[in-house]
Amino acid sequence: MSKKASIIGGGVIGGGWAARFLLNGWDVAVFDPDPQSQRKIGEVIDNARRSLPSLYDRRLPDEGTLTFTDDLAEAVSGADWVQESVPERLDLKHKVLADLTKFAPETTVIGSSTSGFKPSELTAKGARVIVAHPFNPVYLLPLIELVGDAGETARAAEVLRTVGMYPLTVRKEIDAHIADRFLEAVWREALWLVKDGVATTEEIDEAIRMGFGLRWAQMGLFETYRVAGGEAGMKHFMAQFGPALEWPWTKLMDVPEFTEELVDLIAGQSDDQSGHMSIRELERLRDDNLVGMMRALKKSGSGAGGVIGTHEATLALPEGGELPVTVDRQIPQTWTDYNGHMNETHYLEAASLATDRFMELIGADADYIASGKSFFTAETHIRNLDELKAGERIVVRTQLLKAEGKKMHLFHFIEDGEGKLAATMETLQLHVDLTSRRTCDPEPAVAAKLAEIAKAQEGLPFPDGAGRFVGQKRA
Amino acid sequence: MSKKASIIGGGVIGGGWAARFLLNGWDVAVFDPDPQSQRKIGEVIDNARRSLPSLYDRRLPDEGTLTFTDDLAEAVSGADWVQESVPERLDLKHKVLADLTKFAPETTVIGSSTSGFKPSELTAKGARVIVAHPFNPVYLLPLIELVGDAGETARAAEVLRTVGMYPLTVRKEIDAHIADRFLEAVWREALWLVKDGVATTEEIDEAIRMGFGLRWAQMGLFETYRVAGGEAGMKHFMAQFGPALEWPWTKLMDVPEFTEELVDLIAGQSDDQSGHMSIRELERLRDDNLVGMMRALKKSGSGAGGVIGTHEATLALPEGGELPVTVDRQIPQTWTDYNGHMNETHYLEAASLATDRFMELIGADADYIASGKSFFTAETHIRNLDELKAGERIVVRTQLLKAEGKKMHLFHFIEDGEGKLAATMETLQLHVDLTSRRTCDPEPAVAAKLAEIAKAQEGLPFPDGAGRFVGQKRA
Repeated sequence: MSKKASIIGGGVIGGGWAARFLLNGWDVAVFDPDPQSQRKIGEVIDNARRSLPSLYDRRLPDEGTLTFTDDLAEAVSGADWVQESVPERLDLKHKVLADLTKFAPETTVIGSSTSGFKPSELTAKGARVIVAHPFNPVYLLPLIELVGDAGETARAAEVLRTVGMYPLTVRKEIDAHIADRFLEAVWREALWLVKDGVATTEEIDEAIRMGFGLRWAQMGLFETYRVAGGEAGMKHFMAQFGPALEWPWTKLMDVPEFTEELVDLIAGQSDDQSGHMSIRELERLRDDNLVGMMRALKKSGSGAGGVIGTHEATLALPEGGELPVTVDRQIPQTWTDYNGHMNETHYLEAASLATDRFMELIGADADYIASGKSFFTAETHIRNLDELKAGERIVVRTQLLKAEGKKMHLFHFIEDGEGKLAATMETLQLHVDLTSRRTCDPEPAVAAKLAEIAKAQEGLPFPDGAGRFVGQKRA
Repeated sequence: MSKKASIIGGGVIGGGWAARFLLNGWDVAVFDPDPQSQRKIGEVIDNARRSLPSLYDRRLPDEGTLTFTDDLAEAVSGADWVQESVPERLDLKHKVLADLTKFAPETTVIGSSTSGFKPSELTAKGARVIVAHPFNPVYLLPLIELVGDAGETARAAEVLRTVGMYPLTVRKEIDAHIADRFLEAVWREALWLVKDGVATTEEIDEAIRMGFGLRWAQMGLFETYRVAGGEAGMKHFMAQFGPALEWPWTKLMDVPEFTEELVDLIAGQSDDQSGHMSIRELERLRDDNLVGMMRALKKSGSGAGGVIGTHEATLALPEGGELPVTVDRQIPQTWTDYNGHMNETHYLEAASLATDRFMELIGADADYIASGKSFFTAETHIRNLDELKAGERIVVRTQLLKAEGKKMHLFHFIEDGEGKLAATMETLQLHVDLTSRRTCDPEPAVAAKLAEIAKAQEGLPFPDGAGRFVGQKRA
């Protein structure tokens, strides 16, 4: 049975939570008195649908069911997770959290999205709640700061990992938790720079994204400095840059006065910088970039990429059927080209992942490769029969045409979500010794598994389109 | 004739500058009294060779010549750029900059890599110099902060753009320029969090790279907040978060005392976090991740990706020869798979880029596509004849097998840097109307250009390997 998440308070953050759970197969019940909440959350979920599945090379579970209710008790009834994201007013939080504590199942974690309040403040009137502070967009960024009761945060971490998040349990409660302290420090410094006419908002953004932003996205602060210290290490770095703490390198001893002039100055500069794009366009650009960068990090397993890889490994492919399903996934935005459809490169990428999966099925998996044997592609033929668009599902089924000695001849059927054939890919794989880089017969266990699949598939017709050369007339 | 850069002071920063110029075809003369400087700079350049060219889908110019000298006058003689990166001691800077001003050509910009000194401090004793402050790794990160004389910084910006950098001219001199003020603010806050036992170095790094680091790498600070403000915009965001300026959300009013205990605590935590990898391994992982993320941003043109795209457009493909060169590039690390060689997907990616380039040659370019016509791939055949490794050069030459009505039949020869055939790719392209998504004949100008190329190539033999089906015995 599906799990159920209760989202108390919509808006950008609540909507992000709803999307994160819904797209991971949870049912989601939303409680929000705002009459616009259904529309707002719908828009966030639309954004999530076009980006979150694109992080993965496997399909996420079927979406759960999304419901809206104005009955708080109903919203949290039977919930496996309750998330409060109401406005940052302590009296309001106390009122809502008291109700949630009363109505939610006793064993269910109640998380608060608060950035401003500590757990001791939230629980002061007896509510059972921990801080579970996410980052926008909640459906893509893995970080969740957990603060509060040790047992509750431990249980929370377990749940949040199943929806692809990275729970960071904070050792001691502190104002603004961890990440927002850095954001606040930078924000204060940035306000001074704009106010003093040293830099515009755009120049500040460039100073970040053209330089250290790219380092922090993968390494954070200390690992960056460890590398900067070079062979002499972290102590050397600190000896070199420690004294700068005494220098007037920030204005942070002061707090800028938050006047109307300053607000106008910054809002005006921001309009000049980004006003040519709507917020929706900026969000989509941000999400496409996040997907692209996070997919890049997935290759190395660094940072957010490692979280995606771990989560992806829990996503099972469908089993059964005449031919094994070797790929089942959504097409990422990043696979689109100037023709507005999936670029030919990614037809082969999908088929190549299908070959990888078929190799796993016959025991030529990561351990086998580590032992020094693998398959190399010798020859490939692709037919592009239909256009595929970003966001569509594709399913690849694989037929073994022939397995003989070192040769493995495969045929991949690439279908869209409705089962319509969109492409085929025929490939001749040669088994090799990775040390000599020469062909050789597979290990007996792999050969046996290949023979078994060959036998199981021997009644199947030779596929239409196999054995074709480019430009050959159809039979 | 090659341009010449003089690098005064080696080390990580000087070496990064040397690599940036050298790999963009400049001759580089290094002056550094450190007897280890040749080795150190060599190591930085090795890192650069495996990463910088990977940002581009075209080949960078041939490397310039690298020389080392202990004669400062010789080092800067005839230089088109002089970059000072000696240790951050003002007396030393004054001495070196006085010599550079004396020996360097009068019209050559003299840049200082200083993070700590303002131009008015550097020029106080009469030296002609501007601040040109880079970010590590200098060969990959585009950001350069320019501060100083308006004429000199304008000329400097022009030069630095030709080597793929993003010059940010700072409006007023200020301690630590711009970016380092943010780094310093975050550094101070981070020292407090570690000192107070709120978080370890690793937890702080995770708090950054699992969350806002990914936003900043593409958007920076203000654009992120503009989006966070949602439809209500930047003013709404500021109204919501402005009051937090009065809250105790950072410790930055205080400066932590820089004791030996604090250094040991941080160095020890950093060892626990990253000590399983050498600095060299961390650098390579960092560079691979930077390349991956920056290539992802290149797709959307955001931030650093836009800089790469603009620079790439200045890189010309070789002309002449029997067949047009349609790709000339280095193989990125990110194209490698578990077999330790270029993955099959990227053979097709390279060939697909070759088809794009061939389309440009016949006038089916971005404008043509914007007008509503293009080519779609119908069918493809690839032979993988030899392994290709990351860092190797590949060159693609393209033969037009047939152009007839809506059909364009191409054959790409993919060679390694020594001209050895590594793969072939045969492709049937169909000309389409992008509105109806149906095939149609090309516009007359494109058809004429195709006919012209067909005529020029008509004496060429039908390539070995064309017209093959998968698994066909060799003739």
